[in-house]
Amino acid sequence: MRTLFHMPLDPASRVVRVVLAEKGLPAETIEKRPWEDDGALATVNPALSVPVLMDEPPTGGSIHISPAMAIVEFLEEAYPDPALFPTTSAARAETRRLCAWFLQKLDRDVIDLLVRERIDKRLMRRGQPDYDLLKAGNDALAWHMDYFSWLLDQRPWFAGEKFTVADIAGGAFISTIDYVDAVPWDKFPIVKEWYARMKSRPSMRPILRDRIEGLPPPRHFDDPDF
Amino acid sequence: MRTLFHMPLDPASRVVRVVLAEKGLPAETIEKRPWEDDGALATVNPALSVPVLMDEPPTGGSIHISPAMAIVEFLEEAYPDPALFPTTSAARAETRRLCAWFLQKLDRDVIDLLVRERIDKRLMRRGQPDYDLLKAGNDALAWHMDYFSWLLDQRPWFAGEKFTVADIAGGAFISTIDYVDAVPWDKFPIVKEWYARMKSRPSMRPILRDRIEGLPPPRHFDDPDF
Repeated sequence: MRTLFHMPLDPASRVVRVVLAEKGLPAETIEKRPWEDDGALATVNPALSVPVLMDEPPTGGSIHISPAMAIVEFLEEAYPDPALFPTTSAARAETRRLCAWFLQKLDRDVIDLLVRERIDKRLMRRGQPDYDLLKAGNDALAWHMDYFSWLLDQRPWFAGEKFTVADIAGGAFISTIDYVDAVPWDKFPIVKEWYARMKSRPSMRPILRDRIEGLPPPRHFDDPDF
Repeated sequence: MRTLFHMPLDPASRVVRVVLAEKGLPAETIEKRPWEDDGALATVNPALSVPVLMDEPPTGGSIHISPAMAIVEFLEEAYPDPALFPTTSAARAETRRLCAWFLQKLDRDVIDLLVRERIDKRLMRRGQPDYDLLKAGNDALAWHMDYFSWLLDQRPWFAGEKFTVADIAGGAFISTIDYVDAVPWDKFPIVKEWYARMKSRPSMRPILRDRIEGLPPPRHFDDPDF
């Protein structure tokens, strides 16, 4: 059985869940918090991070894969239909550039400060979020949203004319910022229109149903007309 | 003309330089320090980081690509011979897992503290390295080197039986730690033997000739018999 170690509001885990759903690949999802690991996570990923995918690919064998981008590349190679990468070198490079933008840059500039400072700190019972970090995260988010607006003003989807895994990465990451109600949507109508399209995809529904106990999302969170 | 924006002792830039050399692809290398950018770097990479590759692939067009792993994937697709990735799904996934280990985890745990704290701080004229950060970086390095020893005790190369881009990533990153003379080689003979093989490769020679003014490497730095 295909199995994914994940955390519900971990953006990189959400990228993999949406990719699996877009490709119609069922997987058992098991929540693993790295800071409460009993050894199960460390055994399959010494980096002690989620997501980790355990799979038995059509070509045989049994493997465990991390981190998120290695899982995404594996899924595209092992289960190419439907394709989530474009076909030309240039468009594939642009797709990977944007995936790295979300998975690394937005993660460090914004997710650490705005999302993990609220959600992970709560799960770890480590007190209230630090106001200065939230403020810095909000400032960084405004810069990122400006850049996303500029990109999506020129293209219907993040990497170009077609829906790709770059949109999945964007949807998975931005949805965690929206969960903590930190996206000033009224200021970014172009990104909002793209995100409404993303929210309408059946592959996004499960990640929009995630809830953290004691920390509910805003009412518009899972509504495509927001 | 193929052009690479890079910094000589930036480990991710070094990964790309070695991949280009292994594939026999000439490129003009231009040093770009993000903190001194005159706009040339921001224009091709709004993330304002190196490396950035500007290329005209055989399939036509002109593109600029970042970050390092997107460049590596592009080069493997556009110039497949010689292959630097293995052929099976499992081995490709393991190769990408280890590339991410170096490019993200080692980078954050060790390179930031041990290498950038010395080299980038010097280039930025921001004073002496912080002793506590160096100490934390040394502790983290010991843990990583233990893990590398465990891996290389089971396999001749990082991702398995064959030389891959995971070895290039390892060589490029570890060489910057060795530049600041922070690797206690005597404690890690298995990794040392692998690194001696890496240093003997012609593709590694140019990156072992890099020098930072006023911060010379240890004498053994470019010697394969060290």
